[in-house]
This record gives sequence, structure tokens and C-alpha cells, in this order.
Amino acid sequence: MDRENASLIVIGSELTEGIIADKHGQLVSRELTALGYHMNQIVAIPDDGTVGHVLKALLKKNDIVIITGGLGPTSDDMTRSAVAEAAGKALVKDEAAFERLYKRVGERIWGANEKQAYFPEGFATLLNPNGTAEGFFGEAGDTLLFCLPGPPREMSPMFYDHVLPYLAALKGHHNRKRLEYSTYLIAEAKLEELTKEASPLINWGTRFQEYRISLYADGEEGEALKAIERLRAMCGPDLIADGDITALGALTSLLRERKLTLSTAESCTGGLAAMLLTEEAGASTYFPGGVVSYSPDVKENVLGVRPETVEDHGVVSVECAAEMAEGVRMKTHSDYALSITGVAGPDRSEGKDVGTVCFGFAGKDRGTETVMLHFSSWGRASVRRKSATAAFILMRAFIEGKEPLIDITTKWNYI
Amino acid sequence: MDRENASLIVIGSELTEGIIADKHGQLVSRELTALGYHMNQIVAIPDDGTVGHVLKALLKKNDIVIITGGLGPTSDDMTRSAVAEAAGKALVKDEAAFERLYKRVGERIWGANEKQAYFPEGFATLLNPNGTAEGFFGEAGDTLLFCLPGPPREMSPMFYDHVLPYLAALKGHHNRKRLEYSTYLIAEAKLEELTKEASPLINWGTRFQEYRISLYADGEEGEALKAIERLRAMCGPDLIADGDITALGALTSLLRERKLTLSTAESCTGGLAAMLLTEEAGASTYFPGGVVSYSPDVKENVLGVRPETVEDHGVVSVECAAEMAEGVRMKTHSDYALSITGVAGPDRSEGKDVGTVCFGFAGKDRGTETVMLHFSSWGRASVRRKSATAAFILMRAFIEGKEPLIDITTKWNYI
Repeated sequence: MDRENASLIVIGSELTEGIIADKHGQLVSRELTALGYHMNQIVAIPDDGTVGHVLKALLKKNDIVIITGGLGPTSDDMTRSAVAEAAGKALVKDEAAFERLYKRVGERIWGANEKQAYFPEGFATLLNPNGTAEGFFGEAGDTLLFCLPGPPREMSPMFYDHVLPYLAALKGHHNRKRLEYSTYLIAEAKLEELTKEASPLINWGTRFQEYRISLYADGEEGEALKAIERLRAMCGPDLIADGDITALGALTSLLRERKLTLSTAESCTGGLAAMLLTEEAGASTYFPGGVVSYSPDVKENVLGVRPETVEDHGVVSVECAAEMAEGVRMKTHSDYALSITGVAGPDRSEGKDVGTVCFGFAGKDRGTETVMLHFSSWGRASVRRKSATAAFILMRAFIEGKEPLIDITTKWNYI
Repeated sequence: MDRENASLIVIGSELTEGIIADKHGQLVSRELTALGYHMNQIVAIPDDGTVGHVLKALLKKNDIVIITGGLGPTSDDMTRSAVAEAAGKALVKDEAAFERLYKRVGERIWGANEKQAYFPEGFATLLNPNGTAEGFFGEAGDTLLFCLPGPPREMSPMFYDHVLPYLAALKGHHNRKRLEYSTYLIAEAKLEELTKEASPLINWGTRFQEYRISLYADGEEGEALKAIERLRAMCGPDLIADGDITALGALTSLLRERKLTLSTAESCTGGLAAMLLTEEAGASTYFPGGVVSYSPDVKENVLGVRPETVEDHGVVSVECAAEMAEGVRMKTHSDYALSITGVAGPDRSEGKDVGTVCFGFAGKDRGTETVMLHFSSWGRASVRRKSATAAFILMRAFIEGKEPLIDITTKWNYI
């Protein structure tokens, strides 16, 4: 095999005592595997100095070893000296690192903190924007060794900003850039398939989050940007946003900015959209309230949906969705209103498939519009989450006066 | 040190490629640490046969080694032969295990499956109720070695039913029983403090879940039961339920059983209670709907709260809560109704502290009751979650015709 071997040592008694779960193992192994490295071992050990012999054993069989943790000023953090010993180097003071540390901690530097300015001779330091423990890297025999602090908010940016680009360059990936996007409504497995189709030259990464999937494109920047445009053409342009943002966040920013109010009428989502709209402090400026009209009776008596509408078209219909949205907007005196009524499952209803969801959008300066979507999701919770997300994306487009919503949704494939 | 040393090997290329995160490391290390063992290493390795040399190295330094994964029928699962070799034993067929396997897979046993009936000579088998891969344990030199399948739903019950009791007995814990409870509204740190106060003789474990904290009492059964009663007296009896159950689940079971309907009027929770009540399929049998009355205007216009009530007492008041509950019950024609109005934060409101929440409970055969609670929580999401949970606990007590709700809540400490 031409792939280089790598291992990770994660140091922390809080891990070997089961107080917390390790996060670095998955992060490092996912990224290194994507670059073409082979991960031999991920070893978690306590803060008891055993890193020395674990490291020595791993140096023999690995081209790259990454160590996290054990760089703090307290006496049980012994990585620094164990690494120096394993590499056969002396620990020497780095004056520039000492100055940086002094700026951060002032006179408290004298004593335990001071040792954070010592590194194995010949090793280079890695800046830590979020803490006092700088990292370092260098050669120990034939092995390239990286040491990073343990706390994820310190380790993660250092890994992405320094370690990963270095290892990527070793593998011949230059001009490498990591772009981040947020995708909505597309299943993770489908998204992974589509990204490979959009460009096999890019290292794609995804991270599943409850209301979006974060998508990372790692590679030559021009190619990455072109690949994202291809992906947008495949999936629907509104389903892939730049950066880390939820559909909810994009909508509430617009509401705040334009000082608008929005109300909700929900059936299958059962209050989920309202709950999400009120998650953030200050929601009362844009959200007066909503109605969860789960039964036909509440749709008619509280929202004023006409009994004929329900009788002729069913509750899962664009006609019912339109009246729900208009009804709640009137009842709550809001500028805009959205409605959601659909089949969340597990059973079909009114002869409609699970995943069939109708949406209504009403507003003070645009005629009511409706949309019917068919989600391919198989679970009740998933249909509900996707329904709320779709409603937020479409509500924003409606307020912004974009093309008819129905034209937007015809471009949505793979939802 | 008199503590025995233990290590865990977790096998799976899906771990070293970062596709999934390891769950066994935290589980095993937490439980073994609680029993007094010292965890030396948690090592994740791929399904590539390297388990052999990793195991040999660990056998030298550990009294106990647990291995998960690599027991399947496919050719890359090599734990079985690597363990046999490291232990210096032959792999022999276990006829009883073969019979059990044959019952499960029938004629498909011939071929790859058959090897799942082979175990290192002298090792005992561990039954697997959820899969075809039985576990096994025995001595390899001076080390006690346990092998379990990798999938968490197979590994976890086998670990709790067989491995943990065995290791507990080695440490002199006999008559040991693991009791499970669900606790509500009590912060995890506080709960841990109180459990130690309730009995220092019990090994307590907690697992944070979104709407409850699971509490495990490990120890001599009589003492564990007494300790739980002490804990109930300290915290409030309704806040600690037997087994694994949410407050929501207890309420919806009652609603289904008695064929009752319930509606909701929510302010600070913004639809969370309705959303939770509609999570399960079949919710339409007990939930006709609800109103999210976030603004005073919606409280008055949709729910019929009197403007004087809001003016005289504010929207965070038991008076307002009572009218919200009665209003939504009338609008939705439900048997029962609950209301929630409070200060979720981050800022105080109407001169009331963050965490002050008022609840109303209305019903067809009991006069409306109200309760005001003061949650010590510091976050908006936490106040909202606790409010929904408290509403579900109290609604259930109200329907069951228990003592006045206000008497119940005076026993609630530490919420």
C-alpha cells in the first residue's frame, strides 16, 4: 500500500473514566481517511504519564502520529516531556512563544505556566488562538509528530488551520481551500452521492445537523466553486446556502431587519414551526403567535377554514393550506403567515402518501400562494422537520418577492 | 495501587475511518471506573487483523481486556482467531452454540456463519439475545479476556447482563442489582450530589437525556431501594419515576387509556408542548390542537383572556394562566387543557425573574387549578424544556384526581 499510516493518541483521564466521550477520534480519522491516510489506531489514555510508552510503540509503526491533550500547566500534563524523550530531543524554551504567553497570562507566567513555552528542540510551534497551550510538530525518528491541546474548541481550529493543510500538502493537495455550505431537505446519503457526481476532484465532507447538513468542499478553489454550482443546479439553488446558517436563521434575520411579523398555522408539524420561531430571545418582535390545528374541528372553529374546503379537498390540500394561512394571519394580525398540513405518517391519510405536505403563504402585499411537496422521508420526525424547514425557506422567498413559489419548488429534486 | 488495570479494544474500520463515533469507550470506562478498576487504554483499530498484535501488547499490562467487534461471519472479522492465537488456544466448535445458531439462521449456517460457533478452547460463551454473534470469555495468560460483538444494541445488554456483574463480583460486590429510574426537572450536577447524600454505599450513574435524566442505582438491592425513597423525599416523589419513561409518555398513556382529549395554550414554550404531544403517531386521538399565544394580543383575541387580567396581573401570572387554559379548552372542545406562561429569558420580564413560570390546568370534572414555579435554570432552552415537563407531570396528576397541584409542587425542591 502506498498510503501512509497514521495514529492518534487522545490523552485525558476524563475519557478513560467515562466522564466524557472522545470527539477527536472521529474528527481526525474522518479527515485523514479523506486525504488518503490509513488510520492504524486511535488510543485514549489517562493523564498519568503512560503517553511515553504508548507513543514509543506507535512511532515504530506509523508515519504520522497526532497527540491531543496533556499540554496544560498542571503537573499531570506530561505530554511535553514524554514527547521530547521519545523523540530524543531536549525541551528548550521558545522565546517568541514565551512572549506570546506572557502577553496572555502576565505575571502568572512564573511557575507552572512557564513550562508551556518549552518545546522539544527543533520542533515548530502551532499557534492556539483560543488558549495558552500552543501546539508543536516535528520529526521523531522517521515519524512526523503533531501535538495539540485537548479541549475541542482549541484543538479543532488548530487541526483545520495547521495540521490538515500540512498533511494535505504532503499528499500533493496544494491550493487547497475548505469551503462551507449548509444544505436543506436533501438526505445525507443522497447528498454524498450527488457531490461525487458534481466533482470527483473535491474532497467532500458532510456533517448531519438537526435542521441542515453542513457540507464541506476541500480542494482547489476554482473547481470547488464550479462543483457547488453544478450541485445547486442538480438539487435546487435554494437548498444550498453559503456558510453555516439554518433556514430558520435566514428567515428570522429578514423578519428582524424589515420589522415584520409572522404567524403560523400548523397541522402535521404540531407546533414545531412555532417552537423553532420562538427559540431565540427577542422572538416576540416578529412572532405574535400561532395555532396548532391538529383536528379538522380546530381548523374550522379557530382558523375559520370552511367545512366545504375540508369536505371537497381534504385537510391535506393546498386549498385547506391557503385558508389556514389566511385565517391565522387575520386572527393574529400579523404581516405574514405560513401554514403546514400534511401526512407525517406512519400511515397514509386521505389516500395521500406519507410525506405529502401542503403549505400556504399569506401576506399583506402579495396574494396567497400554496405549494404541495412530496418528501421521500420515511420517518414521522423527519417529515415534520423537513416540513418546517421547507416552510421557512419558502416564507423567506415569499417575503422577498421572488418568483412564484411553485416555480422555485419545481427545481427541488431529491427532497 | 490495589486497583486492577483494564483496557478496551474497539474494532471497526467505520471507527478508524471516522464514519461513526465510538460509543463503547465511554460506556465501558464509566462502568469499570465506578467499580474501582483503572482504565489503561481504549484503543480503536480497523477490521484488518491488527487486533492480534494490539492484544498481545495489552495482555502484558492489563488484568482485564475487553474486545468489541470483529465477531461477524465476514472475512474481515478476525477477532476470533486473533484471540485464540494470543491466548495460545485452539478454536473449537461449541455444539450448543452451533445448535443455537442453527435455530436462528437455518441452512444459511453452512459457510461463513458456521465459524460463529467456534470459540477458543476453554472459553465460556456469552449469549447474545439480539444477534448471531455470541460473546466469549476466558483466561489468556494472567489476563481475563472478554469478547463481545460490536453493534451497540447487541453489545450493551451483554455487557450489562454478563460482563459487568462478573467484574463486580470480582471486586466483592455481590447481591448486586442495577435499578433504573427516570428523573425530571432536577439538574444533573444537583442530582449527583443528592444521590451521594441518599446513600454513599450505592454506585450511582446518571445519563442526561433531553427531557429526563436516567438514574441508575447499582448495589445491594435493599439499600438501593431505601436510598431511592430518601431521594424521593428530598426531591419530590413525582420527580423520580420507576424505569425508563418520560413525563410526556406517562401523560399520553393515560390520555389513550381513558380516551381523553387535551389541548394546550402556550406562551413562553412557544409550541413546544404541542410539538411534543404530537410526536407520536396517533396523537390525533388525544390532541385536537392548541394555541401559541406569544403576544398579549393573541392571548386576548384568540384565547379570550380578559384585558383587565393582563393589565392587573401581567401575562406571567396564575390569573392569566387560568384564563388561557379555560380559553383553549373552550375553543378546541377538549376534555382537558393546560397552559404555560412564563419568563424564558434571557431577560427578566414584568419584574419577574427568568425561570418564573405559571401553569393553568382546566378540565371537565375538576375546577381550574394553577401553579407558579421558579426554575433555577439559566438558559432559555432549559426553562422551556422544564416548563413543558412540569406541565405534563401536573396535567397527569390533575386528571388522576390527585391532591391539589399546589400541594404537590411544594414538595419539589431543587428544580
